[in-house]
This record gives sequence, structure tokens and C-alpha cells, in this order.
Amino acid sequence: MGLIVKKYGGTSVGSIERIQAVAEKVHASALEGNQIVVVVSAMSGETNRLLGLAAEIDADASPREMDVILSTGEQVTIALLAMALQKLGSAAVSYTGGQVAIQTDNAYSKARIKNINSGRIKSDLAEGSIVVVAGFQGVDDRGSITTLGRGGSDTTAVALAAALQADECQIYTDVDGVYTTDPRVVSDARKLDKITFEEMLEMASQGSKILQIRSVEFAGKYNVPLRVLSSFDDGQGTLISLQEDSQMESPLVSGIAFNKDEAKLTIRGIPDQPGVAYKVLGAISNANIEIDVIVQNVAKDNSASITFTVNKTELSAAEALLRKIAEDLGALEVDADKNIAKVSIVGVGMRSHAGVAATMFEALSDEGINIQLITTSEIKITVVIDERYLELAVRALHSAFELGDDDQLKD
Amino acid sequence: MGLIVKKYGGTSVGSIERIQAVAEKVHASALEGNQIVVVVSAMSGETNRLLGLAAEIDADASPREMDVILSTGEQVTIALLAMALQKLGSAAVSYTGGQVAIQTDNAYSKARIKNINSGRIKSDLAEGSIVVVAGFQGVDDRGSITTLGRGGSDTTAVALAAALQADECQIYTDVDGVYTTDPRVVSDARKLDKITFEEMLEMASQGSKILQIRSVEFAGKYNVPLRVLSSFDDGQGTLISLQEDSQMESPLVSGIAFNKDEAKLTIRGIPDQPGVAYKVLGAISNANIEIDVIVQNVAKDNSASITFTVNKTELSAAEALLRKIAEDLGALEVDADKNIAKVSIVGVGMRSHAGVAATMFEALSDEGINIQLITTSEIKITVVIDERYLELAVRALHSAFELGDDDQLKD
Repeated sequence: MGLIVKKYGGTSVGSIERIQAVAEKVHASALEGNQIVVVVSAMSGETNRLLGLAAEIDADASPREMDVILSTGEQVTIALLAMALQKLGSAAVSYTGGQVAIQTDNAYSKARIKNINSGRIKSDLAEGSIVVVAGFQGVDDRGSITTLGRGGSDTTAVALAAALQADECQIYTDVDGVYTTDPRVVSDARKLDKITFEEMLEMASQGSKILQIRSVEFAGKYNVPLRVLSSFDDGQGTLISLQEDSQMESPLVSGIAFNKDEAKLTIRGIPDQPGVAYKVLGAISNANIEIDVIVQNVAKDNSASITFTVNKTELSAAEALLRKIAEDLGALEVDADKNIAKVSIVGVGMRSHAGVAATMFEALSDEGINIQLITTSEIKITVVIDERYLELAVRALHSAFELGDDDQLKD
Repeated sequence: MGLIVKKYGGTSVGSIERIQAVAEKVHASALEGNQIVVVVSAMSGETNRLLGLAAEIDADASPREMDVILSTGEQVTIALLAMALQKLGSAAVSYTGGQVAIQTDNAYSKARIKNINSGRIKSDLAEGSIVVVAGFQGVDDRGSITTLGRGGSDTTAVALAAALQADECQIYTDVDGVYTTDPRVVSDARKLDKITFEEMLEMASQGSKILQIRSVEFAGKYNVPLRVLSSFDDGQGTLISLQEDSQMESPLVSGIAFNKDEAKLTIRGIPDQPGVAYKVLGAISNANIEIDVIVQNVAKDNSASITFTVNKTELSAAEALLRKIAEDLGALEVDADKNIAKVSIVGVGMRSHAGVAATMFEALSDEGINIQLITTSEIKITVVIDERYLELAVRALHSAFELGDDDQLKD
């Protein structure tokens, strides 16, 4: 029993039947004695319908007016869910973002929450009401409607949970939790009962499909326990929280993240001087091209080489820019490779254990997989390899770190 | 040139193309130097779509939540119209009812406007913006969304015009003005250039199809010149305003109103005593049956008879009730007749002219039409006749008072 913020996304409220199903789950949870705030998205398809209407008028319509029209999507859902809860006999009241004073900056379409005045919600909860709040939206200082951008409903839920000091923020999705890795690649991938905020962030390539990264950061910052669970099945999902100190033995590795969306660029034979990395990467980033992995090495002849990855869709733009830079710097050569993949092992346990990297490299070597790049952080080791070996690498690592269901049963 | 509030209903903004057409007209009016506030309804069909969604959850959903969902209809239109205006090069900004502080009581689904804080709109207008406001909606003291009921957008427009002291409030509809009578009945019915608030109210049976009666009362109370004109054609429409004192000669009769929706009930042979009318009509009205015309007469034997009209759909309920009352009062008989029609001549000019009634009765008599009931007000004479003579009576009166286009040409 406690104060719980529950968030249901567009698919979970995609039809009248699904809204009724959500109402039944929320109603049941309230009957168990919980105080509940529900954050909902627009019914799936609705946001695209509204975008379509706007695009017929102006493909490049003003962001302020886009937010006015898009915010109606969630407003429809809150009313319908409140009605469905009332029909079941729950007291329920719906609010738009503006009505519960979710104050944001005025960056229309990608606003950031500055403050929430939770007084009204608290008094409704105290009176025994279930409070239904429109996700994804707020108001700026002038009272203009803003939206937090797609997926912003997760952020609304976490921000409300933080403001209300909720016991838990539950994000209902179409998956039943966070897995050790993608079950489509490794058949015995295991659902994690718990994971830390840091691990969840590092698992981004998997996690971003489940949770908005921004909401995980937010939850970590305010220490809001976050639970990912399925809208459609029962189950406890995965709890994302701070690492408990009492937990003496964390698993070395919690999960394996990967992606194939990136391409690799290398510039070789540049003078090894201060400012060179900035000259190379500053120009790329000034062109608004996002850079992920960066590795620099110095060769025997004291010339340096820098390798970095960008999204495959931006490879040609980045390569053209890099060739120009290479000319300016008198560099030896530029190399582009889009047939690469990135694999990471993630775990807070590796902080205090040596040998994790060795196990990783051994497992890849046993499969004859060449490692092109290595970068490390406190709780993650990332390698870049040939794209064609990706699935093989993930399965080998999953097995080497004994992450599967079968491995667990053996213990 | 001046400050104009324009209102476009659901049909006028029923598609993207129509919204663009409205934007073009508004943009052109702004280029002429006018300051413009536009009030819009939901796109036609949208309110019914939202009602349908709500009905799937609960046919009897809470009025508060109904208003939350219904108010999204206008919110979509304001954003689209603001975008369309911007696309044409106008500065434009959209507001929901709540954002411009259209404060109402908390009678959800039929709220009444209490106050409007027009400061924000004034400053936008001063900066050269066209202001687009959602009709039909407001907020109560607690900030909950309210709606004014169907057709409430007219009221929003008039209330804004009053608060802003606008030079004119223009209501765009699918007709091009107010006519002397229904052109489907009288082929040479003439569009009126001007009509007074009082006349417009008395023309209700025709007028209610064009304008919400409530908005006409509102306009009259605050003396907001109201113009009815077509969304689709050009033209000056009909101006509804105070009677100008300078206008020495008003036409005797401005128009002819009629309806066939009512039925007549008579109770005869009741004691002619104080309180009897209340006993009869109080019971009917307590049953929430609306009464229109009421006539009482005293017969030679000092017994009284009361005749009144109700909507045809409520005739059987009213008749049953009346028979019970008749029994209680020891009345002689009760008579019900649903084959009746009501015809009224309306005109501020008749206040100061005798003989109008005589002309009316003569015209009907010439056609052999029997008059069943007569009631009069300062600016209206109403008769009840057999339904089958309605069209004949309207044409005879239209001609007797020389209201037609042909008559005008003769003058």
C-alpha cells in the first residue's frame, strides 16, 4: 500500500476496450488501498491523425500551435479513463498538464519540466480520488500549452512521482520488463527483477525502446523507484532503483546492449598536437551530427588517429566533412565503414571486479571475432565489431557471463 | 476599420479546405486595417465523434469529464486556423477558453459566462496579432474546464465582443442573413439589412436556426452590434442592433415567424378563482414540460377556460397530467389538438401604429382562415390556426405587409 504513479502509453489506451481494461487494473489497485495517480498518453494513432491535419495546413507549422493541437490527444484519453473509472465505482478526476501546473520552459514541442505544483493532486488523493493526468504536456510561464516531445509521458509520470514523493512510478508498456539482452537474439535471455538507474542508462540501446532515457535520468536524480511492467500480462516487471548498499554481491554483468545503427569513421596521420581532436570533432558536432563512441590513438611515428561513430544515416554528410578537415590538417587518410556493430556489457558489479574485460575479450576471441574498437566506462565495456558477427557475439557474451535462464537454474 | 469579433461555426470550419478559406477571409479583413478576434467551433462531426467515444464508456458519463473531452474539439480548430493564418503571413495566436480566462459558473455542459479577462487579447491585438479563441468553453473558479452547451460559440463571440467593446460581432453561418420569413415558404421573402435585438428575439422560430437566442439576449444587454452573414458567399448579411432613435419611420412589420412544432391543450369549465391558473400551469411546468402561448378567458357563466401550447412531443404527457388536474378541479372538459400552427408578425414599428392587428386579421379572413387563439406583445402579434393553412397564412401576411422583394421594388 502506498502512493503509486502509473503511466500507460498510447498502445495501452489504444481503444475503448483497452481503456476499460486499464481502468479495471487501476480500480483493483485502488481497492487494495493504494493512492493512485495515472498518467496517460494519447490513444495510439491519435497523435499521427493530429499531425496529419496540421501538415495539410502547413508542413512547417509553428511549434506553439503544434503543441495546442497535439495536447488534445491526451486530453481525450484522460476524460475517457476518468469516465471508465467512475463507471467502475471509483472516484476519479482528470487534469490536463496545465491544470495541475506542470510548468515547463517555453521550448515548444520539446519543453522541459521546471516545476510541479502538486497541492491539488494531493488534496484529491486525500479525498479518496484517483487522479488522471495528461502526460506529455505542460504550460509555460505565460500559460501557453507546451509538449515535452514524443514519449514525454514517461517524464510526466516520473516528475509527478518525484513531486508527490510517490513510493513507486510504474511504467506500463508492451514488454514485461527489462531483459539481460534482446530475446529475439538470445532465446534464453532472462527478465531482470532489478536493475540500477546507471545500468538502465547504459543499456540505452535496449532501454530506449522501453523507456525514455530522459525519464530514467530524472528518476535517478530524484531517486524515484521506477518499475517497467506489461499493460497486458500480470507480473512484477523490472524495478529500476538505486543500488542498495546492503546488496553485497551484485552480479558482475547485468545485461548486454547492442546496436547496428552506427557507422565508423577514422582519420589517420594527423599531427599529435593539442587542439587536433577539437578541430576534427568540433566541426562534426557543429554540423549537428551526433557522435557516439570516440577513440584516439597515437602511432609510433607520433602521428595520431581518431575514430568515432555516427548514425548510419549521417555517414555521408560526416564523411564529406571529415575529408575537408583532413585536407586542412594535412592528414594521411580518411576511412569510412558502415558495416559495423556495437556491443556492450553493462553491470555495476564490474566496478569492483577485475577480469570482466578479459572474460569478454576471451569469449569474442573464442568465436574468432575481431575487435575493432574498445571503450570503457565505470560500469560498461563497449566493443565495435564487424556487423555480421553481432548476433554471434551477443550470444557468446550472454553465455560467458551466465545471464540466461538456463544458467540461473544451474546455480 | 475597427475591432471585430468573427465567429465561424462547425460547418464553416468542417474541413482543412474550409479552414483555409476562413483564414483567407480573416487575413483579407486584417489587411484592411481591422483588429480581429476569431471564435471557432469544433470541425463539424468532431463533437459527435467525441460524444460517441464517451458513450462507449458510459452513456451517462460525468458532466465534468464530458466537458474535458468535448472541449478538445475547438482546441483542434484554433490551432489549425492559427497555422493557416500564419501560413498566409498574418501574425496569429490561439487560445483555449481557459487561457483567456473565460470564467463561468460550474454548471458543466451548460455553463454561463461570468467574466472575461480580456487583457491578454488586448495586448496581442495591440501587437498586431489576430487572436483565435476556442468557442463554447471556459473554466470555473477551480480551473476545471466547462462548456456552454451546443451553440455556445455564438455566446463566446458576443461575450468577447462585449468585453473588448468591439465595433461589431460577426456571426458567419450557412445562411446569408435574416429574412422577412422562411424563403422556402414565401418565394419572394426578402433579406433584411437591419433588425433590432427585440425583433430578432421575437423572430425566434426562424432565428433560433441561425443564432442562439441566448447570444442575441447577451448582445442586446451589452449593446453589441451583431451581424449574421454567410461563410460561403460575400454580402453584408443582416445587422442586429439597437433601434436607432434617428430612424423616424420603422417598418410596421419586419418579418413573419411561424412554427408547426406545437400542440394546443384547453381546459374548460374551471371555477374563475384566484390561483386556478397556477394550479393548472404550475403542475405542467413542474413536470418540466415547456409551455409557450397561454390564453385565458372567462365565459358568461363565470367559469374560466385556459388554453396553452406545448411541444408536440410532450402533448401526451401534458394531456394526461391535465386530465388529472381537471378531475381535481371539477373542470368540465379537456381538449387536445396537435394539428395547429403558430404564426406571428414582428416589428418594432407596430408599437406606435394602430391598425396592424386589423390588417393581420383581415388578411387571414380574406383567405377564409379561422383564428383559434390570439396573443400579443409590444412588438409581436401571434395567432394559432389550423396547421393545414400555415403556408397560405404566411404568404397572405407577407403580401399584406408588403415585405417581399417585389413589394420593395414597387415603393
